[in-house]
Amino acid sequence: MKFNLDDAIQLLRSTPDTLWVMLASLPEEWTSSNEGPETWSPFDVVGHLIHGDKTDWMPRTRIILELGEDKVFEPFDRFAQLEDSKGKSLTELLDEFADLRAENLEALEDMQLTAQDMERTGQHPEFGKVTLGQMLATWATHDLSHIAQISRVMSKQYKDEVGPWSAYIRVIKE
Amino acid sequence: MKFNLDDAIQLLRSTPDTLWVMLASLPEEWTSSNEGPETWSPFDVVGHLIHGDKTDWMPRTRIILELGEDKVFEPFDRFAQLEDSKGKSLTELLDEFADLRAENLEALEDMQLTAQDMERTGQHPEFGKVTLGQMLATWATHDLSHIAQISRVMSKQYKDEVGPWSAYIRVIKE
Repeated sequence: MKFNLDDAIQLLRSTPDTLWVMLASLPEEWTSSNEGPETWSPFDVVGHLIHGDKTDWMPRTRIILELGEDKVFEPFDRFAQLEDSKGKSLTELLDEFADLRAENLEALEDMQLTAQDMERTGQHPEFGKVTLGQMLATWATHDLSHIAQISRVMSKQYKDEVGPWSAYIRVIKE
Repeated sequence: MKFNLDDAIQLLRSTPDTLWVMLASLPEEWTSSNEGPETWSPFDVVGHLIHGDKTDWMPRTRIILELGEDKVFEPFDRFAQLEDSKGKSLTELLDEFADLRAENLEALEDMQLTAQDMERTGQHPEFGKVTLGQMLATWATHDLSHIAQISRVMSKQYKDEVGPWSAYIRVIKE
């Protein structure tokens, strides 16, 4: 499937609601448990999405549009949320994420980007030359990958409870 | 984490809304594409969840409560939805799933099951003796595994669009 900005925005817009519906009514034990040492709980993942929306996707979009390949992107800190989320509740994080995402998508739409703009390039600290289209496709895909992660992590909390059915639940074993 | 019926019901109740928010606004190309031959699109998965809610989880619950191990469960048909969903739109399936799930959870709550009931047993055609608690834990986990699957399948539609970032998006490569 070819990247389409309107489709990607549609998906990016749905993610805060998806996470709210999935997580807000569940007990904290389910949303704060992870897959073992140095892995993330759903709570940690929401913090990571907030950090991405604050420091990564839109700042990099602006760098590409304003400076092109002249400025290498700041590396993304994948552990920032472990500090930033401290003392907050999950619903506070979900609200913060919803607000940030709405602001970011409004700013993105205001840019009125064209198909040609999607070919504009920036410098990734590790990959080198990347296009704006690749980065925005990654933003949407990154949301999906973390919804998959949250589903997997929560399903694993019942790995001993499902008895012999664990043989059929692929994500429990991953 | 120990199985808790109220928690599981909370999760089971959220799934139709989760799927609605994730899928209803996306273009058909994204929700009807799969991972290759003999794999399922998000559309197919919603049909599979409908079939499970019609023929599997609650009928088996009733068998356990009424007949115990005297009646082996009907095997679950994993391909029924490929026929049943024909000619329907995704939003029709999402509505059908939401209605079925609401009815099923109302019936489940009306049973006023106790922790002791969770130890009652039935005969699975493949696994032999299983408990009601294991089966209801599986119902919730099964929802999560299919939300993970839908996220993975949709992320893969952009696998050529994300360029070098595919190295970091684990679900694209699974």
